[in-house]
Amino acid sequence: MTEDELVAVIRKVLSGEGPGVLVGPGDDAAIVESGRGASVLTTDMLVEDVHFDRRLTSARDLGYKAIAVNVSDIAAMAGAPRYALVSLGLSERDDPAWVVELYGGMRSACDEYALSLVGGDLDRAPRTVISVTVVGEVARGRAVLRSGARPDDRIVVTGSLGAAAGGLQLARAGHPSAATEWGRALLDAHFRPVARVGEAETLAQAGATAMMDVSDGLLLDLWRLCAESAVGARLDLPAIPVAPGLRELSEVIPSDPLDLALSGGEDYELLATIESGALGVATSKIDDRFGVALTDIGEITEQGFLGVDANGNEHELEPRGWDHLAR
Amino acid sequence: MTEDELVAVIRKVLSGEGPGVLVGPGDDAAIVESGRGASVLTTDMLVEDVHFDRRLTSARDLGYKAIAVNVSDIAAMAGAPRYALVSLGLSERDDPAWVVELYGGMRSACDEYALSLVGGDLDRAPRTVISVTVVGEVARGRAVLRSGARPDDRIVVTGSLGAAAGGLQLARAGHPSAATEWGRALLDAHFRPVARVGEAETLAQAGATAMMDVSDGLLLDLWRLCAESAVGARLDLPAIPVAPGLRELSEVIPSDPLDLALSGGEDYELLATIESGALGVATSKIDDRFGVALTDIGEITEQGFLGVDANGNEHELEPRGWDHLAR
Repeated sequence: MTEDELVAVIRKVLSGEGPGVLVGPGDDAAIVESGRGASVLTTDMLVEDVHFDRRLTSARDLGYKAIAVNVSDIAAMAGAPRYALVSLGLSERDDPAWVVELYGGMRSACDEYALSLVGGDLDRAPRTVISVTVVGEVARGRAVLRSGARPDDRIVVTGSLGAAAGGLQLARAGHPSAATEWGRALLDAHFRPVARVGEAETLAQAGATAMMDVSDGLLLDLWRLCAESAVGARLDLPAIPVAPGLRELSEVIPSDPLDLALSGGEDYELLATIESGALGVATSKIDDRFGVALTDIGEITEQGFLGVDANGNEHELEPRGWDHLAR
Repeated sequence: MTEDELVAVIRKVLSGEGPGVLVGPGDDAAIVESGRGASVLTTDMLVEDVHFDRRLTSARDLGYKAIAVNVSDIAAMAGAPRYALVSLGLSERDDPAWVVELYGGMRSACDEYALSLVGGDLDRAPRTVISVTVVGEVARGRAVLRSGARPDDRIVVTGSLGAAAGGLQLARAGHPSAATEWGRALLDAHFRPVARVGEAETLAQAGATAMMDVSDGLLLDLWRLCAESAVGARLDLPAIPVAPGLRELSEVIPSDPLDLALSGGEDYELLATIESGALGVATSKIDDRFGVALTDIGEITEQGFLGVDANGNEHELEPRGWDHLAR
């Protein structure tokens, strides 16, 4: 199959003229309407054998995830995703059916998060590489950065943590409990992560002072937020919302639920800081609108990076998590 | 070196707060001012051993080229480049000094084409992968697409063709003539391509009906333009501006200058169509403003894809060129 033939097949899978799309795929570049506010730009790359294993993930899930993780970055700024571009490096093992399934998954995520796939690039590569860029928009001055956390702010997180890392362990082990309800929930969290777009907008409206998504693990990401805000943190360890299923997982595969929740990565939950007076309204709105828990997991301090255990003892925390360059 | 350490070094190389940049590198996403017109979006990936050979290219040239080829796609729509995002997959062979040089080259191209490098992503990969996205802007309704060519339009091309492919042959052969003036010009064309941003804007103002950049070879790209416009083409083969140096190259390395000019790829010259009445003004403006030749190489027809040789004989042309998926 030549490039032009594959491009013709892919174009059929892609969304047609979405809102704001003036020139879609097929020209040198795409043209879209500029939003009224500011543009939010992010890019993220998935590399075979680093971020995914083709024996474990379906092409459709992989395509979905490649879009969702970028949407999560737009959400983390309190932005709304609008357009996606995809650069795809295809290896010899990627037959056309696999590629069409991959685009099907991307299309499905684009439909779910209401963005249009407007362009891209196809190349060959020694291993499969998927590089996605998402362009979103946000009202001027309404973005929530990592740098706005202030001492005494509460630290909150949406949903629960550690499920994606647990799902990866379960998939790698090929354990039969993958078929249980809790097993499937962990696998879904890994292969089909959810981007918290609406929740992020609600948190921003409720007065979040800083926000980011938890992609590399709570401790490492919170440490980065603290560094950008020039503050410290004091985490209430028993309050950390450990994902359901991790206890069951620990009974069949050696693993520590709290450790997965603290350092597992790829949860794509929102980590935010908010003044304590605004916490109640934020929590009830996110529960009412999305049925998602917002959990108070600690407080921002002047300095230091501490965890407090159930006995009230303080521990210095290590910013451990996913280092993209570790080998 | 950890990811956070490398990111800290890279941030120092990056441009600071450029015009329109509201939030630069370091958060979940970048935030930039939305332009007044429409946004132009493009992405392009360079893969080691497919698009570049680290034994032949310097990190600085590679970084420059990764930006320039994307700028060329924005130019080909008659757009102005504004912001760049870079996703970088680093292999074990990429030491920090190499990565900093790479960013230095990107910075240099961003400075030259007046765009800001606002964000990106670092990952490890089995081979080095550089995926760049450029966001530009264009006044609403002013973009020049591939689909606007009409029968009787003249076909024009900027500069000359085949130099980049000749330069690649010369580099691969490691021939001593690489040190000659013509040799260095061919190598520069390959390693440091020029994006024709101003020329594209001038061509658009002068009434170009269709435009694209010549990235995969004149024949293949012209064939794509004709397909999008549902027209044919009749090329005047003796008029093709064969790059200087290709005759000299053919004397030291077996190669056909016309063949390199027709199918070589990576020239990043502009290929456009324009009504014959507008051709004179366009040609003199591009010469006056940029010192660049605009050459009339044939005409758009109702159908067919023909070349006419010096004796007036017609030949059916094959749309040969760089197929991104060929092995």
